[in-house]
Amino acid sequence: MKLVVIGGVAGGPSATAKAKRVNPDLEVVAFEKGGFISYAACGLPYVVSGDIPSLDALVARTPKQFADQGITIKPRHEVLNVDYANRQVRVFNHLGHTEFTESFDRLLIATGATPTHPNLPGLALGNIFTLRSMEDGRAILEAVNALPSGARAVVVGGGYIGLEMAEAFVKRGLRVTVVEQLPRLLGNVDREIADIAKNELERHGVEVLLESRVTGFSGDGRVEKVLTTHGELEASLVLLALGVHPNSKLAASFGVDTLPTGAIAVNDRLETNLEGVYAVGDVVEVHHLVSGRHAYIPLGDTANKQGRVAGVNIGGGSAHFPGVVGTAVSKVFDLGFAVTGLTELDAVYMGLEARSTLIQAPDVASYYPGATPLSVKLVYEPSSGRLLGAQMAGRVGAVKRIDVIAALLHRRGTLEELSDLDLAYAPPFSAVWDPLLIAANQALSS
Amino acid sequence: MKLVVIGGVAGGPSATAKAKRVNPDLEVVAFEKGGFISYAACGLPYVVSGDIPSLDALVARTPKQFADQGITIKPRHEVLNVDYANRQVRVFNHLGHTEFTESFDRLLIATGATPTHPNLPGLALGNIFTLRSMEDGRAILEAVNALPSGARAVVVGGGYIGLEMAEAFVKRGLRVTVVEQLPRLLGNVDREIADIAKNELERHGVEVLLESRVTGFSGDGRVEKVLTTHGELEASLVLLALGVHPNSKLAASFGVDTLPTGAIAVNDRLETNLEGVYAVGDVVEVHHLVSGRHAYIPLGDTANKQGRVAGVNIGGGSAHFPGVVGTAVSKVFDLGFAVTGLTELDAVYMGLEARSTLIQAPDVASYYPGATPLSVKLVYEPSSGRLLGAQMAGRVGAVKRIDVIAALLHRRGTLEELSDLDLAYAPPFSAVWDPLLIAANQALSS
Repeated sequence: MKLVVIGGVAGGPSATAKAKRVNPDLEVVAFEKGGFISYAACGLPYVVSGDIPSLDALVARTPKQFADQGITIKPRHEVLNVDYANRQVRVFNHLGHTEFTESFDRLLIATGATPTHPNLPGLALGNIFTLRSMEDGRAILEAVNALPSGARAVVVGGGYIGLEMAEAFVKRGLRVTVVEQLPRLLGNVDREIADIAKNELERHGVEVLLESRVTGFSGDGRVEKVLTTHGELEASLVLLALGVHPNSKLAASFGVDTLPTGAIAVNDRLETNLEGVYAVGDVVEVHHLVSGRHAYIPLGDTANKQGRVAGVNIGGGSAHFPGVVGTAVSKVFDLGFAVTGLTELDAVYMGLEARSTLIQAPDVASYYPGATPLSVKLVYEPSSGRLLGAQMAGRVGAVKRIDVIAALLHRRGTLEELSDLDLAYAPPFSAVWDPLLIAANQALSS
Repeated sequence: MKLVVIGGVAGGPSATAKAKRVNPDLEVVAFEKGGFISYAACGLPYVVSGDIPSLDALVARTPKQFADQGITIKPRHEVLNVDYANRQVRVFNHLGHTEFTESFDRLLIATGATPTHPNLPGLALGNIFTLRSMEDGRAILEAVNALPSGARAVVVGGGYIGLEMAEAFVKRGLRVTVVEQLPRLLGNVDREIADIAKNELERHGVEVLLESRVTGFSGDGRVEKVLTTHGELEASLVLLALGVHPNSKLAASFGVDTLPTGAIAVNDRLETNLEGVYAVGDVVEVHHLVSGRHAYIPLGDTANKQGRVAGVNIGGGSAHFPGVVGTAVSKVFDLGFAVTGLTELDAVYMGLEARSTLIQAPDVASYYPGATPLSVKLVYEPSSGRLLGAQMAGRVGAVKRIDVIAALLHRRGTLEELSDLDLAYAPPFSAVWDPLLIAANQALSS
């Protein structure tokens, strides 16, 4: 029995290791188009910032470590096509410039996602980057190293990666502008929370342009100007952070079902519509347990969890991935921003009846050194008190509290249940009323 | 309609404020035996340590602030007895040395708890303290201020308060010994976690004597030696931290039902067996939602929550206090220690079938600066996978994760549910596998 895996960054390696552990007789071969395998792409902004000394630190497991477990994993190997009827894949080796065929019994698609490139004039100019792979990280690092201090960087897109990279560029001595098309940062995060991110960026000298669209780039070989609906911006470096789309073309080409977002449809065993073909990670859709709908939320932790579940099933065991509640978190300079479930904007888009409460309270006892305001927004269904989501902004460590709401969302928890929780209290950890309880009580009495 | 409250530290003030908000016509009079009202007793160790500059910082609301809300709250007023049949209390004013009678329609008992004093020779010597009230805090501060640097302090009892005070004394330049009768610190916390606290204390120069009992004190006016089953210890100052017992004598004297621990029995509306008489805080028993039994777990946050619930009910509304899951947390120097639900020791004492898993994993991405090991122990029922409890030791901010387990325990959550949780991930907040998930997965595959 042989498993072929297409993709070697997160979900793929996670699945191979688990499948091999469940079934040690399984033959496992994984192909990764890029030059690096098994790494934490989410750490790339912190290598660019200098917080992490080198790209190597992001590597979770080396090909050697996989080999020791009996897993063959090949970087710079691109799967060109899949012959599902004959259960074989055609592979191009970018190192040796050779092509070969590999047969499979089970196939795992873990091809990930690709950054969205806007169709704009000047896009091919030098020093315009996206950040997705180790190669991207290295290219950006080299470009930043070559720039004089005080050079201008423009980040296009004010989502998580855009803001993490804005911070990284500031730390590297660049002057940074973030250009965002929406009237707020952080995507569907509600305005009250997103505005705290805007303040935090501005406090660190980042210029934030909202409701501004990029219309093109100009320069002589390398980018020099970003053209926007609000005028021109000087730029020695541009980062495009406009989200990603799933790399599902290969899968679709041999009959794997995809959804309107382009992501692959899977069941809770991570099986596609084709028998023996599994898919995990940023190329698949997930079931959103709060909305009850499909959602495309590509995140590294989800990819790893799905890899584990697919690995168990491929190995002959039985495991299920129940879905997500949409939890995400990001650091912007000294503050953390966290979200789970639906924002009020999400709820409005979905036509749900929703109400919200926003509170600000000290994250530890108000009299304890370092107490910092934590903003908590709860979104709930007014008729039932059912929690729909939460958002937080505050000290980095403090916003991990979002996980408590995530746990409640998994089981359709209510405001009442939140307010009843026996949460950990001592002055260095929380006020006697944890901000979560204050928020729940305020919502209940409104 | 008039409410009389006996006790003005935590649960009492919380109830008065809520009752008055629910029913603005309610007349509210509260009596507090001590000289301070409405303060955070849990903050006292941090005033002694110098982390918090003065006792005043611990005061939540002043008598003036209560008066502005139409609430009379009187420090140094001791309720001597309660005539339940005639609905009146007899009060002694320690300031004016006068006695008077106050009538009531509703009575709230919030008399708290008293530190346990061992019946040992030499207990009346000077510089032997307990820590409970502002007055205690002030006395200890004065004694510490009068001691030369390097003087010896002995802390009797290695529970939360004992260890917080050991840290405080070290910060004030004293040499500290902790004497604990049990073979471990932190009460029923399991050995693997408690031993981390022992190491942390020793790393900061604290001597820890386990399985040692104090047999007496000697000295000339002031304590000079602590006599133990393992020899004599020099001591210029002694803190007794042997737990507390509920101040329920007054309540019992007029017919309020108490339980074998001495704590007052209440229903989930915080009513005692006597109509119109409520009780909250460290004087009452709580329902433990995991064991399904009564438990005496006196904590400030519980007192405040109960005060709120009692206040609603006294004000004419309807609220319930469902119980606790036994969540607690404490800082010992640079580490936090958290517990929720049952420890393995608790489970053994209760004769429950229990198994456990212990893991250690980085609290943030392993490659992110400052990543620190977090120890997580899960206790569960092997047949059903039901979670019974968790314990953690790690960086102060990291152990607040215990709240996720607490949330699951409130609804009889399982290991499977824990492993399915969509927790917040980004490198500065967590590894791609949060330690909680690693622990759940390890338990599931064992």
